[in-house]
Amino acid sequence: MTVGIIAVGNELLSGLTTDTNSQFLIKKLKNAGISTSSVCIVNDDPESIIKALNEIDDRISVVLVTGGLGPTHDDVTMKTAARYFDSEIIYSEVAYNRIQQLFSDRGIASLIKMNSDQALVPEKAELIPNQNGSAQGLKFSGSKKTYYFMPGVPAEMKKMFGDFILPELQKQTKQSIFSTIIHTTGVPESVLFQKIEKWINNNKELSISILPRFPEVDISVTKSGEIKTGKSAVEHAVSGLSELLDDAVYGFDDDTLESVIARQLIENQLTIATAESCTGGLIASRLTDISGSSEYFKQGIICYSNQSKIEQLEVSRETILAHGAVSRETALEMARNIRQIAKTDIGLSTTGIAGPTGGSLEKPLGTVYIGLSMNDKDYIFHFQYNRDRAANKLLFSQRALNQLRLALKGIDG
Amino acid sequence: MTVGIIAVGNELLSGLTTDTNSQFLIKKLKNAGISTSSVCIVNDDPESIIKALNEIDDRISVVLVTGGLGPTHDDVTMKTAARYFDSEIIYSEVAYNRIQQLFSDRGIASLIKMNSDQALVPEKAELIPNQNGSAQGLKFSGSKKTYYFMPGVPAEMKKMFGDFILPELQKQTKQSIFSTIIHTTGVPESVLFQKIEKWINNNKELSISILPRFPEVDISVTKSGEIKTGKSAVEHAVSGLSELLDDAVYGFDDDTLESVIARQLIENQLTIATAESCTGGLIASRLTDISGSSEYFKQGIICYSNQSKIEQLEVSRETILAHGAVSRETALEMARNIRQIAKTDIGLSTTGIAGPTGGSLEKPLGTVYIGLSMNDKDYIFHFQYNRDRAANKLLFSQRALNQLRLALKGIDG
Repeated sequence: MTVGIIAVGNELLSGLTTDTNSQFLIKKLKNAGISTSSVCIVNDDPESIIKALNEIDDRISVVLVTGGLGPTHDDVTMKTAARYFDSEIIYSEVAYNRIQQLFSDRGIASLIKMNSDQALVPEKAELIPNQNGSAQGLKFSGSKKTYYFMPGVPAEMKKMFGDFILPELQKQTKQSIFSTIIHTTGVPESVLFQKIEKWINNNKELSISILPRFPEVDISVTKSGEIKTGKSAVEHAVSGLSELLDDAVYGFDDDTLESVIARQLIENQLTIATAESCTGGLIASRLTDISGSSEYFKQGIICYSNQSKIEQLEVSRETILAHGAVSRETALEMARNIRQIAKTDIGLSTTGIAGPTGGSLEKPLGTVYIGLSMNDKDYIFHFQYNRDRAANKLLFSQRALNQLRLALKGIDG
Repeated sequence: MTVGIIAVGNELLSGLTTDTNSQFLIKKLKNAGISTSSVCIVNDDPESIIKALNEIDDRISVVLVTGGLGPTHDDVTMKTAARYFDSEIIYSEVAYNRIQQLFSDRGIASLIKMNSDQALVPEKAELIPNQNGSAQGLKFSGSKKTYYFMPGVPAEMKKMFGDFILPELQKQTKQSIFSTIIHTTGVPESVLFQKIEKWINNNKELSISILPRFPEVDISVTKSGEIKTGKSAVEHAVSGLSELLDDAVYGFDDDTLESVIARQLIENQLTIATAESCTGGLIASRLTDISGSSEYFKQGIICYSNQSKIEQLEVSRETILAHGAVSRETALEMARNIRQIAKTDIGLSTTGIAGPTGGSLEKPLGTVYIGLSMNDKDYIFHFQYNRDRAANKLLFSQRALNQLRLALKGIDG
């Protein structure tokens, strides 16, 4: 079964409202093993709606239309559907009773004309109840395709789809879809692809996509089939790809870099403190995005001035004078000292130049030194990026967290 | 001029990634007075892309295609475009040099084949520079329509569109559109609407939209027309609306809350330090998102544990024992003490419960106390939210920054 979605509404094309309905439907369908092959967003006018209905791909067997079923003058979907399916518009007592019930549940005794007019529906349509509103859903069964028309109001659409339409579609689905996402960081998309290109070419029955999601790259592995074969094919692929991608892989599906590090720290009963200069608190903020982070995150110091590096972090004045605030030596002292000050197992530090000003020939914009002090070891990492300030800051924090993840796995990288 | 958008990518139909590019384009076009009449999202396969290109409405004169220009096997848009426009694929020295320059700027001396292969481009296309990546943009000029192909990576697409494509389209647009965005924070959408409803009804010749952009609400004011009348109508509207909205308005157009605060601090030659608990460094990170922030931001301490509050921030043990770590009294001491420790003009603090655990009857999830110490005054603010952890954290930081902005204007709110 393949689905096509048509979202109707001027507001979706005016920049005022984002079409969130289609994303909702795509996800719900995917979880039920049903794939979506196109989404079209069109204006609220009969010609655009009919053009979209006419152009639905032959391979699509179910068409979901959202929007334009409401009671106001700019809601033209119902009349357009009647015209498209060559159907009379009739008064439906079933619809009228449902609308009256809805309004009486809301404490409104008598219907105004605008609402009672919503009992006028296409004769050829099967009505789908709307438990959150007065617009009835419509189902038209064609010889090759089934069409469902739903309201555009998200709460009404979601309930109608979840309660009535999805269960119908699930009954008809023969195949299931299995899918896993592999999350990577620290290795560019093109290098990742080189590592797995041959594997992909040897396993054409699987659908593998490389999806950059700055500053990370995801790899999705999808296979449709019977429960047993589909699932084990995906599992086999994920283990094969993970082996090739090695340390670039930090997690799967719902994992985030922050949640994986949280797990590593909690499992090893380790605590951490941060000393940040150029990342300005972003690393601490990311580490504390996880519920329960107070178990491992104890303290952070953001030392933007040399004075605060010296007074709060006890970095020696001589180190800063001799090597500069942006240097291996300063990063190292920052990591060591915050570890000592906060009495934690791990100290993590950054010092660098996020830009767009402050660079020099020796230390260009985008330079970062990352210090990591843990166990009986100290590490210093040096990276160089060339992005705008916001992206540099994010990349600095990403590198620092990734080096922490790797060090916790015993990789000095 | 009317635009049609085609977004290419399996990931956009798989539920993995939301198509944010189309929304970005619709908004940018709208602000330039250009309307979008359809968006189609299709899979990364040649047939789907060609079908979408074929079905673009006759009334559309500009087609914007995003996605599928990257270097990996699933990027088929470039080859499909060559086929559609019946063009040879040739080696472009211009493209090669651009790619080499990009990589050398990133400190990579030699290109791997996959990247140098991106210099293979359709002969009939005009190349559009990509300043954030190696995939060249493509422009095909047909007799009735112009087609632009852009990468799907948002940062690459946005820069290419803003720098090269939008200016081209604007030159061809006949009508001028004048538009200003009013940025507000701290007041709910429905309350904002009540304040300006009457004004909107009395000024129907202007297009006014209320656009929630969590955790802020924007109000866009648009008018098309001659340069003089259009511009002055918008200016008049912005001043009328700003008066009604009063302190909720923090800025216009490119302003951000962070940039407005930066300006306030620099103009008044004030320095600031932060002491954060529940926001975990997010406030410091936002304050340092602005280039030149070292001029006003001196130091931050993130004290997630009671121990670090006592040892590093010198909050008295008695205060925490008597009132709790999440209390007016602790917030106040945090703000006062960080101001003293960092020797800054202003101290800003947060202590609260972001959730999803840690709430109590007396101090439910979503509670935050914000402390602000400046001039000869100390302020304490108490707010209560009811969102998930990430949204609570963002709202806490937003409130703290907004109270800082208001206090800098002399409003005690």
